[in-house]
Amino acid sequence: MSKLLFFHPDLNNDSFFLSEEESKHLTRVLRKKNGDTVHFMNGNGIEAIGIITGDHSKQVQIQISERIEHPLTKKYKFHLAIAPTKNNERIEWMLEKCTEIGIDEITFLNCSNSERSQLKLDRFSKILISALKQSKQFHLPKLNEQVSFETFVKQKQHQYSNKFIAWCESDLASNLNNKMAQLPINQTTELIFLIGPEGDFTAAEVALAKSHYFEPVSLGKNILRTETAGIYVCSVFANHFQ
Amino acid sequence: MSKLLFFHPDLNNDSFFLSEEESKHLTRVLRKKNGDTVHFMNGNGIEAIGIITGDHSKQVQIQISERIEHPLTKKYKFHLAIAPTKNNERIEWMLEKCTEIGIDEITFLNCSNSERSQLKLDRFSKILISALKQSKQFHLPKLNEQVSFETFVKQKQHQYSNKFIAWCESDLASNLNNKMAQLPINQTTELIFLIGPEGDFTAAEVALAKSHYFEPVSLGKNILRTETAGIYVCSVFANHFQ
Repeated sequence: MSKLLFFHPDLNNDSFFLSEEESKHLTRVLRKKNGDTVHFMNGNGIEAIGIITGDHSKQVQIQISERIEHPLTKKYKFHLAIAPTKNNERIEWMLEKCTEIGIDEITFLNCSNSERSQLKLDRFSKILISALKQSKQFHLPKLNEQVSFETFVKQKQHQYSNKFIAWCESDLASNLNNKMAQLPINQTTELIFLIGPEGDFTAAEVALAKSHYFEPVSLGKNILRTETAGIYVCSVFANHFQ
Repeated sequence: MSKLLFFHPDLNNDSFFLSEEESKHLTRVLRKKNGDTVHFMNGNGIEAIGIITGDHSKQVQIQISERIEHPLTKKYKFHLAIAPTKNNERIEWMLEKCTEIGIDEITFLNCSNSERSQLKLDRFSKILISALKQSKQFHLPKLNEQVSFETFVKQKQHQYSNKFIAWCESDLASNLNNKMAQLPINQTTELIFLIGPEGDFTAAEVALAKSHYFEPVSLGKNILRTETAGIYVCSVFANHFQ
């Protein structure tokens, strides 16, 4: 049986209490008792081995016995900025898949052709944690509030050495595969990638991005859905820097 | 508004009738009438422009006015053989995503660690057609019945110039990215890729595949779910041969 792994953002203290929900889950569902071992991760590279020192079903107490540091070994840093799909389920799948494959930061963009959607960031956050645990990683991607396309592009113009914007007009955009061949893989490479809504970015948005040092790239001839494009780019980067 | 595109496997005749379901959809929901234009695809590269010559709500008659051939321009042929997940929804998402990104053939494998699952091939087929139309492609991937791992590996041992099996033991497998660098991109490259169930392939299965000319490759350090691995490999190949 694989080890029990809980998420606990603050692992600085040697002793702490779990929430009522977690305490109930641990004692009533998993039948854990005083002396049993539980692993924790803080989403920032630290894993801690904890011993149950108080098994009250509403307030389990944990004593940390050991901390293990998992340094970030990825050779690249990837920030995906993407227009949310109208359908929440599609965003959630994308978040799960991108986290499994490997991503560092996600920002939702409000674009000209964006559909209005209510983003449930709390729920999204739980999906990231669950995918992180499932794929045995220890660094939680950063999830940002939705921001307007214009604000984002202007903010990032002097950050990230490699900035791309996906564009369906394949005749006017570079080929992603050719771009990849030019990316260094012997150092920490910073990448940012913009993906538009169903209906794509407008020509004005692409022009704005270009004037702020984002390069238009095509993901090929097939028209990918927004969430598919997110997973696609994530996979291509992960493989390139494998 | 984008053109109306229907799937009709046989477009050889100049005149044909639609099924009752399609006829009802066309006349009652889409309000189409005599003289209106409908596009059809046969999933084998042919698009046909049809005119409604009989608008009975149970039996619409179509007259083909023109046929357009869409040759397959992809530089590779990719056959994914994958253990179905227990959860049907995960398979369905994978089928949709792989079809959008580009795939030629899919076989479901029955492996030692496979969960028992009922595969709804009729439903899967509809998902492929829908994803094909959505991504503006004209070649439908071939979807095969489930076969045993052993049978499949033996059948394919002398087919496909590039045969891989995904293996989580990254120390014992080649790196997929290194393998990709060696693949020719100036000709039609045939690829077959085996992806195992949750719990991975057994050592015996990997050994059997190796003795039948499949090479073990690792998809990186992160442990990907089965359906994520399918989409990942599909994306990496599509980008490589873009």
